[in-house]
Amino acid sequence: MKALVLFSGGLDSTVLATQMKKDAEETRLLSIDYGQRHAKELNHSQQVAKHLELPHEILKLPQLGTILGGSSLTDKSLILPEGHYAEESMKSTVVPNRNMILLALAGGHALSLGFDTIAYAAHAGDHTIYPDCRPEFADAMDTALSLADWNTLSLHRPFVDMTKSDLVSLGAELDAPLHLTWSCYAGNEIHCGKCGTCVERKEAFALAKIPDPTKYEE
Amino acid sequence: MKALVLFSGGLDSTVLATQMKKDAEETRLLSIDYGQRHAKELNHSQQVAKHLELPHEILKLPQLGTILGGSSLTDKSLILPEGHYAEESMKSTVVPNRNMILLALAGGHALSLGFDTIAYAAHAGDHTIYPDCRPEFADAMDTALSLADWNTLSLHRPFVDMTKSDLVSLGAELDAPLHLTWSCYAGNEIHCGKCGTCVERKEAFALAKIPDPTKYEE
Repeated sequence: MKALVLFSGGLDSTVLATQMKKDAEETRLLSIDYGQRHAKELNHSQQVAKHLELPHEILKLPQLGTILGGSSLTDKSLILPEGHYAEESMKSTVVPNRNMILLALAGGHALSLGFDTIAYAAHAGDHTIYPDCRPEFADAMDTALSLADWNTLSLHRPFVDMTKSDLVSLGAELDAPLHLTWSCYAGNEIHCGKCGTCVERKEAFALAKIPDPTKYEE
Repeated sequence: MKALVLFSGGLDSTVLATQMKKDAEETRLLSIDYGQRHAKELNHSQQVAKHLELPHEILKLPQLGTILGGSSLTDKSLILPEGHYAEESMKSTVVPNRNMILLALAGGHALSLGFDTIAYAAHAGDHTIYPDCRPEFADAMDTALSLADWNTLSLHRPFVDMTKSDLVSLGAELDAPLHLTWSCYAGNEIHCGKCGTCVERKEAFALAKIPDPTKYEE
């Protein structure tokens, strides 16, 4: 397996990159700047890639924001909601068709590298406010990717039955550089501790009973 | 139906835009600069959009070429093959995963506009050297697009059983501005007449017995 990891510099894809480095014949990382307000995660992706000694590319497409309007994750004029993902207000963080766009770009890059696998950190804890985190969406993308070229290309999702706290446990076991990862949507100096993804990150470490190395504002 | 037309400024998508203007409640056009050497088609897309009086956006992502290497359609250091699409040499014009990337971007834009349909000019004459022109690929993308959001989004492909000469006939019947369209991959001042898409364009007009308004180099 030659695997291109769709890699944000967050917790999930860092555990995945660490796992793939162990399992795959060859592993490369791809990060994508789609105009997210937390583009800070891209700096963290570089630190993680360096730590893991894996080749890493960042594709900068900040113009994407111009056609994907209306999300508080890309539009800084909108207020980023605080609280738990389960809340209605969190829906404003949905970026329309984000995951299909990221997977399509990773597919093109994997094919041009002659790689056979896209590794994707979708997991069972992904929240139902994001329709493109549903397993049936990823299944459909796996089918489409397998038909996009004459060469074999498949979507590898080893974490699909794991929760985020399972990923923290696995990351600790694999000695993944969790301390270098970035989750927060706000993109301030340190993690805000209040947005949906910060709340979830804290919970995952607590549930896994692993000390949380993250500095939070509060 | 509110339709976003994936629109290159070529013959097929111009006939589609003309048809959708007639059939849909609302129609908008989206063109994408993915670093293609024939970016000239984008100027033609503007002329066609103006003629049809349809709103039109061009998303400029020329950086895509940096991760989609190895195609003679995006890499000007490679020689663009001449001749018929059926020839082996034409395979160098395949841009890895191009159609998935274009459909994913159109999907994101359609969702952010509140549109329910992506109109796509795939037709029966699309050539088997392009794996992502296969009907089964488009079927898989239709499924994935329907799952990418809570809102309905579907892939409308009204030309799927028509040949390119059928499209020329339909275009003439609908009074589509075929004279403003651009096909040639070479991207010179006028159509080269020798690349795969020029050869196909000439054949389509001849078979449809419609006078070809195109000026060719030869």
